[in-house]
Amino acid sequence: MVSEHRLKRRVQFYETDAAGIVHFSWYFRYMEEAEHALWRAAGLSIAPPEAEIGWPRVAASFEFRRPLRFEDEFEVWLGIAEIAEKSIRYTCRMTQGDTRIATGSLTIACVSKGPQGTMKSIPIPAEIAARFEIASGGHAERT
Amino acid sequence: MVSEHRLKRRVQFYETDAAGIVHFSWYFRYMEEAEHALWRAAGLSIAPPEAEIGWPRVAASFEFRRPLRFEDEFEVWLGIAEIAEKSIRYTCRMTQGDTRIATGSLTIACVSKGPQGTMKSIPIPAEIAARFEIASGGHAERT
Amino acid sequence: MVSEHRLKRRVQFYETDAAGIVHFSWYFRYMEEAEHALWRAAGLSIAPPEAEIGWPRVAASFEFRRPLRFEDEFEVWLGIAEIAEKSIRYTCRMTQGDTRIATGSLTIACVSKGPQGTMKSIPIPAEIAARFEIASGGHAERT
Amino acid sequence: MVSEHRLKRRVQFYETDAAGIVHFSWYFRYMEEAEHALWRAAGLSIAPPEAEIGWPRVAASFEFRRPLRFEDEFEVWLGIAEIAEKSIRYTCRMTQGDTRIATGSLTIACVSKGPQGTMKSIPIPAEIAARFEIASGGHAERT
Repeated sequence: MVSEHRLKRRVQFYETDAAGIVHFSWYFRYMEEAEHALWRAAGLSIAPPEAEIGWPRVAASFEFRRPLRFEDEFEVWLGIAEIAEKSIRYTCRMTQGDTRIATGSLTIACVSKGPQGTMKSIPIPAEIAARFEIASGGHAERT
Repeated sequence: MVSEHRLKRRVQFYETDAAGIVHFSWYFRYMEEAEHALWRAAGLSIAPPEAEIGWPRVAASFEFRRPLRFEDEFEVWLGIAEIAEKSIRYTCRMTQGDTRIATGSLTIACVSKGPQGTMKSIPIPAEIAARFEIASGGHAERT
Repeated sequence: MVSEHRLKRRVQFYETDAAGIVHFSWYFRYMEEAEHALWRAAGLSIAPPEAEIGWPRVAASFEFRRPLRFEDEFEVWLGIAEIAEKSIRYTCRMTQGDTRIATGSLTIACVSKGPQGTMKSIPIPAEIAARFEIASGGHAERT
Repeated sequence: MVSEHRLKRRVQFYETDAAGIVHFSWYFRYMEEAEHALWRAAGLSIAPPEAEIGWPRVAASFEFRRPLRFEDEFEVWLGIAEIAEKSIRYTCRMTQGDTRIATGSLTIACVSKGPQGTMKSIPIPAEIAARFEIASGGHAERT
């Protein structure tokens, strides 16, 4: 069972904006990169080919403390804060060594995919839930 | 004085992902597009050439209710919820007619730009604050 | 029948990079925005729901002459240069009034979608080809 | 002296589009990622803080042979094809093992940055040119 993942990452040029720093929309993508790496570490893909279930995002937030610049190296720590019947909530910390860059949160729902792209909320399949557990030590809440 | 802005927008193909819907990171960009249009409506640019002050984002969040798909037309309504000494907070509603798509929030800070890209929080210049006011009718809070 | 389309556009902040100008990858997206608008003007969507054919890009190029900056307004002119049995080639000019910004080209192929995401090149359906014609006056070639 | 760089990369979800494949604009970003890694391998940053010279892109192209999908692993090979007085031209091959995914080209110019964002083409500084050489063995041309 996996409960957290730490991703090391470097800022790419196309992630910066005319203010000379990473555009804030990228933090949400960094968080999602860490999420998908967490799923791979659990032996899963969050979006396998021909999947009949999906995981749309239902809420996402970030507080931004310090900017990142081109070629900066940083860490994205993602931990599972809650596994509910039909949703999962993660917390995220972005850091450069001991310096906090940003703190985020992401909630995803489990849905079955119907015709014409319809989505219906369903319980998380047991074989998927069994791969994950809540991040221990309260790390997830020490944001 | 301006207090809110409604932006009409169509989903572009590059904004969709393999789930067939708009990637959630784009909602934050849509919200910012509306913000910059609000500033233009106030006779301002949020990032004029050679500006000595800047407006980094300090917090952003969204709750996602319904997906958007390629070529969907939708509206982004942005209202000023709070003007503090050194920051501005907006609320955002995305809709398709009467259907709520998403609800967001964005807080930006006013900073002076120093050497080597440093940023220092400063009071919002009076001539800028004078262009804006809180969105009336409680719209901003009826999210 | 349609043969060309002119799109008016404004640079968004998230399209700029730390050099203070629009990142070059965006020109390809601007060109595609104009393409999809051209198809809508022809009464078509290039990617309708549940479509059994698709239009992957097989070649794309740009020459960049002048930079674009935040909030710049510009025009994207897209013209059909060639309609072959199984592909369409466009030429693209981006301008600010009389100033040439960039010149591009895009070739797309018509494919049928098979199981597991396979794609097979097929002739362009007659009812689609009938909506388009080559841009007249040699505009397409005067790049 | 460095002449080529091979980057290993995995497709991220936000790089895919509603056709279920990587959006073509991303290939240009992958190519640039490899370029900046090549510069780091040469002991340089292409955009160091407070730089007085810059490297705008003057031409870019790709031919796309096979699609990439979410979580695919692939390689981006970038080689220096030409070092002219004021510009550098790279060629790029993207592969999955022995399978060719795409073939690209990128030309960048050396410019000095003036006031108000002006850029003037200048000869490549000798200390930078000395770090690079043409990719040997004709690899660069075997596209």
